[in-house]
Amino acid sequence: MRIDGRDYRTIWLDDDGRRVNVIDQTRLPHRLETCTLSNSTDAARAIADMIVRGAPLIGVTGAYGLALAVASNASDAAIDAAYAQLLATRPTASNLRWALDRLRSVLARAPVGERRSIAYAQASAIAEEDVAACAAIGDHGAGIIEEIFARKGRRLNILTHCNAGWLATVDWGTALAPIYKAVRAGVDLHVWVDETRPRNQGASLTAFELLGEGVPHTVIADNTGGHLMQHGLVDMCIVGSDRTTRAGDVCNKIGTYLKALAARDNDVPFYAALPTSTIDWRISDGVRDIPIEQRSAREVTHIIGRAADGAIVEVQLTPDGSAARNDAFDVTPARLVTGIITERGVCAASAEGLRALHPDLAD
Amino acid sequence: MRIDGRDYRTIWLDDDGRRVNVIDQTRLPHRLETCTLSNSTDAARAIADMIVRGAPLIGVTGAYGLALAVASNASDAAIDAAYAQLLATRPTASNLRWALDRLRSVLARAPVGERRSIAYAQASAIAEEDVAACAAIGDHGAGIIEEIFARKGRRLNILTHCNAGWLATVDWGTALAPIYKAVRAGVDLHVWVDETRPRNQGASLTAFELLGEGVPHTVIADNTGGHLMQHGLVDMCIVGSDRTTRAGDVCNKIGTYLKALAARDNDVPFYAALPTSTIDWRISDGVRDIPIEQRSAREVTHIIGRAADGAIVEVQLTPDGSAARNDAFDVTPARLVTGIITERGVCAASAEGLRALHPDLAD
Repeated sequence: MRIDGRDYRTIWLDDDGRRVNVIDQTRLPHRLETCTLSNSTDAARAIADMIVRGAPLIGVTGAYGLALAVASNASDAAIDAAYAQLLATRPTASNLRWALDRLRSVLARAPVGERRSIAYAQASAIAEEDVAACAAIGDHGAGIIEEIFARKGRRLNILTHCNAGWLATVDWGTALAPIYKAVRAGVDLHVWVDETRPRNQGASLTAFELLGEGVPHTVIADNTGGHLMQHGLVDMCIVGSDRTTRAGDVCNKIGTYLKALAARDNDVPFYAALPTSTIDWRISDGVRDIPIEQRSAREVTHIIGRAADGAIVEVQLTPDGSAARNDAFDVTPARLVTGIITERGVCAASAEGLRALHPDLAD
Repeated sequence: MRIDGRDYRTIWLDDDGRRVNVIDQTRLPHRLETCTLSNSTDAARAIADMIVRGAPLIGVTGAYGLALAVASNASDAAIDAAYAQLLATRPTASNLRWALDRLRSVLARAPVGERRSIAYAQASAIAEEDVAACAAIGDHGAGIIEEIFARKGRRLNILTHCNAGWLATVDWGTALAPIYKAVRAGVDLHVWVDETRPRNQGASLTAFELLGEGVPHTVIADNTGGHLMQHGLVDMCIVGSDRTTRAGDVCNKIGTYLKALAARDNDVPFYAALPTSTIDWRISDGVRDIPIEQRSAREVTHIIGRAADGAIVEVQLTPDGSAARNDAFDVTPARLVTGIITERGVCAASAEGLRALHPDLAD
């Protein structure tokens, strides 16, 4: 997608055919900097330090990290060591484990001399599959937006929470892909961007993405969406999902549940856009069965921004001595979700809906 | 209430019997500083610059501001000029207008030579009436907390939003008064403090208050409360109200409505604690009829905190070029409010409930 008129992906192979470049997301939105990953340790650090984030992008970065390891040493022992190093960076990221497992199992069957080219081809394939899945999510979701636009006949207001945009994937994004596709198809729309405390992925990353694509948008405090819905200023909500139960419960950034409640209370359609890889077919009740990551309290007590002199600094918000708690995700029950958008199409947020759209995956 | 073991009010007459001292709330929670107001211009600036905030405290500060004006010049013209100057600081603050009107009408009937002592006596009376009302709200609300505590037989978790504590009043507060009274009566409780973006009155002022009073508490992002309620970690919500309709709709800091929705979805009791002076008997439908203050977008795009070197600095959170919107309040419909606590007692959030408790005011 575009930044300052230039097309980017979040991760791409260097011209030397070996090293891997990524956008440093810790500097956004204030500075656009890229990092070059020269070995698997660089890749592990990029994941651990959140230079790259978002489940799909973490998976692709892990795959390229393993390819970088193979480029130096294609032995089984070296592959196992890099696998362990990369997996340890974000142990709960299921996409990371999936991508690493896929590469390792292919490499295990390949002659050592061919492993390097196979590893890069596999990493590239995972990246391209992600792009294709996101583009398909975009197409399916854009259909919903176009239908609402045709019905209302005026500029639409769409609310999103956190960043499920192209910066969380390789390209297009998940929740934002339908918006980008709809805009390119001529839909007149404006996006309400929840800032998404405590890490402010909305205010920093989603706003930055929308600026680059020229999509009209307004950043709001997370507290604001319900009030806007009460006053008819939201036509649709679209969010991502880090994990989805077979019954259609979606686990997304903390605060998503509150917006879903407000959407229901005001008859605003509420969609979750997600790749099928996030569906956990083993569980039904998300509130009961999805463990929620507890992150550092410091993300609540402190915040990072750009000072008047341009320096990026961290400031403390709370008094010394006050504790803080940082639940990273919450679960929105399927009963509050109007529909789920995957690369296969759109379905009801229910066991029946998900199974009908994904009969080959659901068993 | 207590800060570092010492008792404070938010506003008090200086030992010279003329000047007025206030806590500078713009420096909290990082620095405890007081300001001395020597004339009505100082008082107007304290209100406009939010050195004092909270509807009751603004009213008392306005009253003392008029007394300071009278202390220099007790003529009708001087009183009218100070009245206009003070009222212009926060034109939508109904307590401010009420307090200024009360003083001016008493002064208009008094001989010029007696106006100074009358003005200070009236300002002091308004302050003492506010303390008494807050203490009564605290007593009535503490009864509810004690009942829940007796029923559950374990430490209670109470969620509050924004700052409706003693810093918003002269002493005790509104939403926090029941908590302070319950703690002093021996209830074991812990408070979830919504940070309350964009101005962070929870993270700064409520946390600071609770620290001073030794009440266990944890600051959370505004996104978190629904998740905590889903997991049984909230026993009760108490919030304030800046304006309350005759039907029991409450207008409070933006985001209150979202917590009320979550409370309803999880069967958590949701109370609003407010002085009867906030009840607007002329209107019923708060969502339709209460105009919502639009504040500067800069409160969303920027935030103030304490840097590592101790300096209090403002940092930018959003990319250059992204718009922001800052609705300061929202309306929680009466159907989501379990009960309303006023200085008269506790009643249902309904026209019948409010009228029965306030028959002399309701017509």
